[in-house]
Amino acid sequence: MRGILLSDGKVTYREDLPRPERTAGEALIRIHLAGICSTDLQLLRGYRPFHGIPGHEFVGTVVESDEPQWIGRRVVGEINVPCRQCDMCRKNMPTHCRNRAAIGITGRDGAMAEYLLLPSSNLHKVPESVSDEMAVFTEPLAAALQIMEQVHILPTSRVIILGDGRLGLLAAQVISLTGCETIAVGRHADKLAILEHRGIATTLDTHPFEGSADVVVECTGNPDGWRQARALVHPRGQIILKSTFADQTAVDMSRVVVDEITLIGSRCGPFAPALRLLARRLVDVLPLISQGFRLEEASLAFAHAASKGILKVLLRP
Amino acid sequence: MRGILLSDGKVTYREDLPRPERTAGEALIRIHLAGICSTDLQLLRGYRPFHGIPGHEFVGTVVESDEPQWIGRRVVGEINVPCRQCDMCRKNMPTHCRNRAAIGITGRDGAMAEYLLLPSSNLHKVPESVSDEMAVFTEPLAAALQIMEQVHILPTSRVIILGDGRLGLLAAQVISLTGCETIAVGRHADKLAILEHRGIATTLDTHPFEGSADVVVECTGNPDGWRQARALVHPRGQIILKSTFADQTAVDMSRVVVDEITLIGSRCGPFAPALRLLARRLVDVLPLISQGFRLEEASLAFAHAASKGILKVLLRP
Repeated sequence: MRGILLSDGKVTYREDLPRPERTAGEALIRIHLAGICSTDLQLLRGYRPFHGIPGHEFVGTVVESDEPQWIGRRVVGEINVPCRQCDMCRKNMPTHCRNRAAIGITGRDGAMAEYLLLPSSNLHKVPESVSDEMAVFTEPLAAALQIMEQVHILPTSRVIILGDGRLGLLAAQVISLTGCETIAVGRHADKLAILEHRGIATTLDTHPFEGSADVVVECTGNPDGWRQARALVHPRGQIILKSTFADQTAVDMSRVVVDEITLIGSRCGPFAPALRLLARRLVDVLPLISQGFRLEEASLAFAHAASKGILKVLLRP
Repeated sequence: MRGILLSDGKVTYREDLPRPERTAGEALIRIHLAGICSTDLQLLRGYRPFHGIPGHEFVGTVVESDEPQWIGRRVVGEINVPCRQCDMCRKNMPTHCRNRAAIGITGRDGAMAEYLLLPSSNLHKVPESVSDEMAVFTEPLAAALQIMEQVHILPTSRVIILGDGRLGLLAAQVISLTGCETIAVGRHADKLAILEHRGIATTLDTHPFEGSADVVVECTGNPDGWRQARALVHPRGQIILKSTFADQTAVDMSRVVVDEITLIGSRCGPFAPALRLLARRLVDVLPLISQGFRLEEASLAFAHAASKGILKVLLRP
């Protein structure tokens, strides 16, 4: 089949990839669209070793499954494939499975190809009213919703979101649905305009910013985000960390103790509420699409996704 | 009056200190006993600038007050003196007051003297059944209880307490009252024996320790505690930070994100439940007393408190 191979820090378009062979419990999915995520860009830069087909944001149609109700269904899918045996799986935390694979990231091929294999227990049907272009945002929107799973944001809270990348724009939209005072801080007026358009307050971080907040969500994707978050959060406030990067961060733990700050790492989230919000048009994802490419244009697409100011880049097999 | 003065990194016994003059709302307290806390030792090492009478752990008797019901009462007192004006005070977080003084730490004289001034709103009556030697532990026991204010520890949780100093021994006792599986990890068999005596599991950290936990409480007082806590906590677990120290700590934020770890700084806690636990003998504090000194023996007392393996050192005016 046709697809993209990530290997030795390069992506290449290939036409000779084997079509994956289904085992019991798995569904074979024909991919309609796949998204390039910053994790994909980091894999390319060697954030962790991965050799295979990248891509964990997708929408497609099930073409083979043991369970007839899935055949022909348009689906999105959770990216972690747990072992269902380890202590974390037994504690009902499959996304933290000790032996997990994650499609396109570790241990399993991803979605940037004609076909993808995924256990059918990972699948979610996409409502008719949600287009492919919207559905491909289910995974990052679920990651934004994970904040709401972990932190009780009050209607009276003041929340600052740092970073106007894809995740920051989704997080700001989700958080603002609580009715709380939401301020998105970023570096790109055009990206922030997407939020302004929905009535969410934004500010460019080139301006001296004097605010402070009960909750700060760190989506900058760079190590400096921590310092900025720390400076903006109230005593007894919460910092949600969404960024992954290779470097260590120097933290003044004594100030964390004295100010009783809570710091919460946050990763993958729930798909079902993400699909509900998309179906109800409560989150605006289409303005986040920067450009679409064909699989054949793999190198070009990845280079485009990595360039400054670009939001979501989509790939179509 | 007689008292101890901390100045320029030294403690000296003085007989010429002015007896403090009471203003409206304040109580004058004759000190029965004061405790030396590791914060006092850190002030001596320059953790933050302080010139004055140290000491924030005390029990005494009110000798002057506007409010007659306090006169003659045996009391302990909360250490933070808030402004009651700032945003944190208005949010009902007086321990995080932007302009707070803390007796013996910042902006106000402490308890290592014959007399102490404190707003009567900071005072708590000591039940008759709680001796002076027990009551002087109210403040550190309240700090241990702050963990329970911040984190919902379940009866089915597994909790590891790192550090067998004063705070670690109090935290382990308080946490074990939930019925949860509690394991105290320390370096001193004699200190851990205090917990073993109450039926709490302990282990020397010189042994390779293979466990892991839902919650890890970091009370080691040294920067290496973070690494140990991080290695022991489950994915999606919580690390409670109780240690303050001058250095910055290098943190791998990406692993915090991927494992969705929550890190919670924890400082001063509630006095009323601490007194209730002391009155009911649910926490054993007397074995934590290493030695008592008179105020005149200030230098000796501080040197003793700073020496290896010593728990609580008390001062008697």
